[in-house]
Amino acid sequence: LVIFELTLVAAEKTLIERIRRFALQSRNRAVVRGIGDDCAILRPSRGHELLVTTDFSIEDVHFRRQWHTARSVGHRCLARGLSDIAAMGGEPLACFLSLGLPPKLPQRWADEFLQGLSRLAKSYGVQLAGGDVSASHKVTADIMVVGQVPAGEAVLRSGARAGDLIYVTGELGSSAATLKQLLAGRKIRPSIGSRHFFPDPRLNAGAWLRRHALPTSMIDLSDGLSIDLGHICEESGVSAIIDAKRIPVARNSTLDLALHGGEDYELLFTASVKARIPAAIGGIKVTHIGSVAKKDYRSAIRILDENGRARALRPLGWQHFRA
Amino acid sequence: LVIFELTLVAAEKTLIERIRRFALQSRNRAVVRGIGDDCAILRPSRGHELLVTTDFSIEDVHFRRQWHTARSVGHRCLARGLSDIAAMGGEPLACFLSLGLPPKLPQRWADEFLQGLSRLAKSYGVQLAGGDVSASHKVTADIMVVGQVPAGEAVLRSGARAGDLIYVTGELGSSAATLKQLLAGRKIRPSIGSRHFFPDPRLNAGAWLRRHALPTSMIDLSDGLSIDLGHICEESGVSAIIDAKRIPVARNSTLDLALHGGEDYELLFTASVKARIPAAIGGIKVTHIGSVAKKDYRSAIRILDENGRARALRPLGWQHFRA
Repeated sequence: LVIFELTLVAAEKTLIERIRRFALQSRNRAVVRGIGDDCAILRPSRGHELLVTTDFSIEDVHFRRQWHTARSVGHRCLARGLSDIAAMGGEPLACFLSLGLPPKLPQRWADEFLQGLSRLAKSYGVQLAGGDVSASHKVTADIMVVGQVPAGEAVLRSGARAGDLIYVTGELGSSAATLKQLLAGRKIRPSIGSRHFFPDPRLNAGAWLRRHALPTSMIDLSDGLSIDLGHICEESGVSAIIDAKRIPVARNSTLDLALHGGEDYELLFTASVKARIPAAIGGIKVTHIGSVAKKDYRSAIRILDENGRARALRPLGWQHFRA
Repeated sequence: LVIFELTLVAAEKTLIERIRRFALQSRNRAVVRGIGDDCAILRPSRGHELLVTTDFSIEDVHFRRQWHTARSVGHRCLARGLSDIAAMGGEPLACFLSLGLPPKLPQRWADEFLQGLSRLAKSYGVQLAGGDVSASHKVTADIMVVGQVPAGEAVLRSGARAGDLIYVTGELGSSAATLKQLLAGRKIRPSIGSRHFFPDPRLNAGAWLRRHALPTSMIDLSDGLSIDLGHICEESGVSAIIDAKRIPVARNSTLDLALHGGEDYELLFTASVKARIPAAIGGIKVTHIGSVAKKDYRSAIRILDENGRARALRPLGWQHFRA
C-alpha cells in the first residue's frame, strides 16, 4: 500500500481492476491461481525446470513518451522478458507486472500500455498472473517472466566450444537504425512491422533449436552483437571470429549498427560444425556469421572486414553512435 | 541496456558486480543457475507448486531516505515479498531484484541496501538469483520472490467458512505507531527490533500452520487489519466479527492503529472451531480475535467495542490517521 501519497489509493484500485481485466484475456494452464491472493500459484509441467527473468522499462531511460506510443512501450516491456526465455530455449508461462505511473498520466496511456502488453502475451499464451502498482515520478514498468524448459535442457551462454559455428536469426541493426533516426529528431510513426517499436521475440526458433539439441550456447541480442557475443565468449571461455560479409544487415541499417546496435532481440547461437542448421526456422532466416576459436587474451572477438583483413571487434554497444 | 543515459553504463556494471557478490552470500539448492545467464533456472521440489509475488518499494511512496536507513529499506523490500510467501504457508526459494537508482546516489547507499536485503535473505535461505538495474529518478526497488508449497496445499484467502474462528500472530499497530511518530517529525533511529524498520516475516508460523492443515484461509497484514480481513471476507464470501478487547495491541500503539495501521506483516488466519490452535508458534504469540459469520451485505466486518456493543468496522487503512 502507498503510505505517503494517500490520494492515490483510489486510483490504484482502479488500475488494479483494469489490470485484472486485461489479465483475463490470456490464460495459461500452468497458472493454478493468478491475480487475487497473496501470491500467484504456478504448476510447471512434470520434469521441467523454471526459467525466471526480470526487466525494467523506465521512461527516459528505455523509452520516451514522445517517441514511443503506450502500446509500443507495453509490447517492448514484455518482449524483453520473452526474448530472454527464447534465449534459453524455453516456453513462457506467466508474466508479472509491477507498474509505477505518474499521478497525472492519462488513464488512456495505462490502458494502451496494457493493450500492447496483453496482445503480445496472448499471441504466446502467456498469462499476466500478478504484479504490483504504485505512484512513481516517471513511468516505471518491471516485467518478470516465468517460463519452463525440460530439466537439464536449458541452453546456456557457457557451452560454446572452439570449432563451433556462430549463427544469428533474422536481420540485425534495424532497431538501432530507427533509434538513430529518432535521436536525430525524425518523427516516426510506430508500425506493427517495426523491429524497434514491436519486436517479435524468437520463441519458436529458440524452442525449436533446443528441442533438436542443436545449440551449444545461445543468447538474445539485446545489447548488440559485439557485446552479446562477448558474453558468450566470456561465459564459455572462448573467442570468436565473425565475417563482415556474412552479417545479415537489415535493409534500413548499416554494418556498424548491425554490429553494435542493441534491441534487435534476435537469437545468437553456436552449434557444432556437424549440426545441420536449417536456412530458416518457421520463416525466420538463420545465418552462419562466423566461428568459435580458443580463448584469445588479446581480443575476444575478431572480425574479417570486407577486404578479408582480421581486426579486433570491441564491445562498443550503443554509446559508439553518440559522438 | 540503458540506451539514453549512456554515462551510466559503467556505473551499472559496477552495481551488477556488487549485486553478484551479495548474491553469493546466500544459496538455495532449488536455484540451478542464478545470476549470469539470460534467465535464472529453478528446480522446485517434486510434487510442489510455485508461489510468485512481486512488490514495489519506491522512494517517497513506501519509504523516505531521511527516515529509513538504506539497510532498513533493503530489509523491508524483501520482507514484503517473504510475508506474502508466509501467508500462503510456503517456503521461499529465491528472490529477484530490479533496482533503479538515481545517478547521484552514493554507492554506500546501494551497498547498505544490499546488506539489509541479503542479511534477511540469508536468515531464511533465500538466494538472490537475478534482477535488473537501471538509472531512475527516485530509488525504485521491485522485488520478486519465488517460493514453493506442496501441490494443492497453499493456503488461500478464499477458504473461510461461517463459524470459523479468526486469529492473528504477534501484536498489531507497532509499525503504524512508528510511522505516526515519523510523520509528526520525531527522529527515530532504526533498531533491529523495530517492527517498522526491520519487520520479521512470519515464515515459520505460516509454514507450521499449513503443515498441520489448520488454517481455512490466511493473509498477511500489510494494509491493516480492517482492510486485510476485508479481503478474506470478500474472497471467502463471508463476514467477520472481531472483539476489540481481544486485539493484541502492541505496547507502543493504540487500538485504532492496531485496527487500521498497515505494515505489521503479521499473519491473519481463520480456522475451524475444532482446530487446536496453539497459544504460540515458535515463540510467536497467536491470539483468537473473533469469528467468521455468514455474508452480511450491510458490513463485512463488525467489531464489539470495549462496552460489548457491535458496530461496523470500515476498511479505513492508513489514510484514517492523516486528518
